[in-house]
Amino acid sequence: MKFLEMLRAAQERNGSMLCVGLDPEPRRFPAALRGDATRIGEFCARIVDATADLVIAYKPQIAYFAAHRAEDQLERLIAHIRKVAPHVPVILDAKRGDIGATAEQYAIEAFERYGADAVTLSPFMGFDSVEPYLKHEGKGAFLLCRTSNPGGDDLQNQRLASIEGSPLLYEHVARLAQGPWNLNGQLGLVVGATYPNEIERVRAIAPTLPLLIPGVGAQGGDAVATVRAGWRPDAPIVVNSSRAILYASSGDDYAQAARREAEKTRALLASARP
Amino acid sequence: MKFLEMLRAAQERNGSMLCVGLDPEPRRFPAALRGDATRIGEFCARIVDATADLVIAYKPQIAYFAAHRAEDQLERLIAHIRKVAPHVPVILDAKRGDIGATAEQYAIEAFERYGADAVTLSPFMGFDSVEPYLKHEGKGAFLLCRTSNPGGDDLQNQRLASIEGSPLLYEHVARLAQGPWNLNGQLGLVVGATYPNEIERVRAIAPTLPLLIPGVGAQGGDAVATVRAGWRPDAPIVVNSSRAILYASSGDDYAQAARREAEKTRALLASARP
Repeated sequence: MKFLEMLRAAQERNGSMLCVGLDPEPRRFPAALRGDATRIGEFCARIVDATADLVIAYKPQIAYFAAHRAEDQLERLIAHIRKVAPHVPVILDAKRGDIGATAEQYAIEAFERYGADAVTLSPFMGFDSVEPYLKHEGKGAFLLCRTSNPGGDDLQNQRLASIEGSPLLYEHVARLAQGPWNLNGQLGLVVGATYPNEIERVRAIAPTLPLLIPGVGAQGGDAVATVRAGWRPDAPIVVNSSRAILYASSGDDYAQAARREAEKTRALLASARP
Repeated sequence: MKFLEMLRAAQERNGSMLCVGLDPEPRRFPAALRGDATRIGEFCARIVDATADLVIAYKPQIAYFAAHRAEDQLERLIAHIRKVAPHVPVILDAKRGDIGATAEQYAIEAFERYGADAVTLSPFMGFDSVEPYLKHEGKGAFLLCRTSNPGGDDLQNQRLASIEGSPLLYEHVARLAQGPWNLNGQLGLVVGATYPNEIERVRAIAPTLPLLIPGVGAQGGDAVATVRAGWRPDAPIVVNSSRAILYASSGDDYAQAARREAEKTRALLASARP
């Protein structure tokens, strides 16, 4: 199934806009696993088991595996998601961005090695750094547009004199993704939940693209304002929460606590739907 | 030793501005190794053995290892470089760019796991996506500024209305790297060899930063014009060639052929020094 269809189906089936971000930090694991980098995959798998009927997607962040030499655990984790939640798409958060020949290698890594359904990408190097991913039929790619971190302003909020209408850089990225770059309807955008008015702005420019919205939960984004700004019946929003769910409890009940937190966030998001 | 000192020392010792990019593609290997992803590290190690006295740096591109599940081979390759060429710095070409907490993980991957001396980064997410790397004392970080690929124009060449003097986006990045972002003198810039006049422009803005300049060789950049535009006595330029050297011969003499090509390129670069 194509990524976008898969996303719509998961949204429908689980009644959810919530994406659980898998950013495992061994030092924050419950006592029985704490500090044990060989059990990263196991920790995440228990979170998946507890939330598989509550989410629109899972988003493993590859850095948290790579720092611990745990690529094999990431492979097995994604295979586990396939088994227990075959209807839930996996977005590999990697934010790659490189020239065409290298992008081809990264696309193989994301889609063939890990079997992800979509990937996050940086648009900084332009269209030929994005195109190789689009050659993987049915796969999705979310371009960084307006990110939720403090430094997101540094470049993304600069106004471009050289483009008609003098858009901000992130608005220009949104236009490119909605228009000329989106060859086969595979693109989406990453827009931080910390800036609901900018989600609204991106939505006006890119009405049909799926939006991946990190920053709810530990990062402090307003879940309700996020949904009001971004929700469209036909273009899913994927609202990510990582730490607030993964580390909802530091005890042995961490998976149940994650489920409760995920249920709460899912309901909060649903209540905000216009 | 700090990265910048290491770079200067290697430049001096090997009389070189040439960086050999390690972008191994098994399908392009000589017949005895062709298509064998378990011998990626071995192929690269033979290139290193043949060129260790000719280069200012090595630049392994992580995507070419990750696509083949060959992170362990990359670890061993960098350890091999340490052994046969302890004076030559290793720049891990990864072009990472993510929020602070994730950047910390990527920095651990690059500097602790792989033991690289420097890394390439994307500036798209702003200063707090760069800062965690700078906390690793003595390590270097090259920010993408003006890249050598066709799509490099798409964002990097946009003129910014909101900044004094209306710089292009890549000029703005160069200013940030030369100035406020360069807390401890660890930053450098990536500027493609395909645009010598833009190297000149970056040099005017960032006179003291090391420049990593890909695009010579297979990508067609003009080596002589590159050196004329970028060379400074105190701020090394690191001129990268990958494919032209790695695949100089498709026969069993590939390492010797790589050496000849590296010698030729080193001499060409040296001859262009003002």
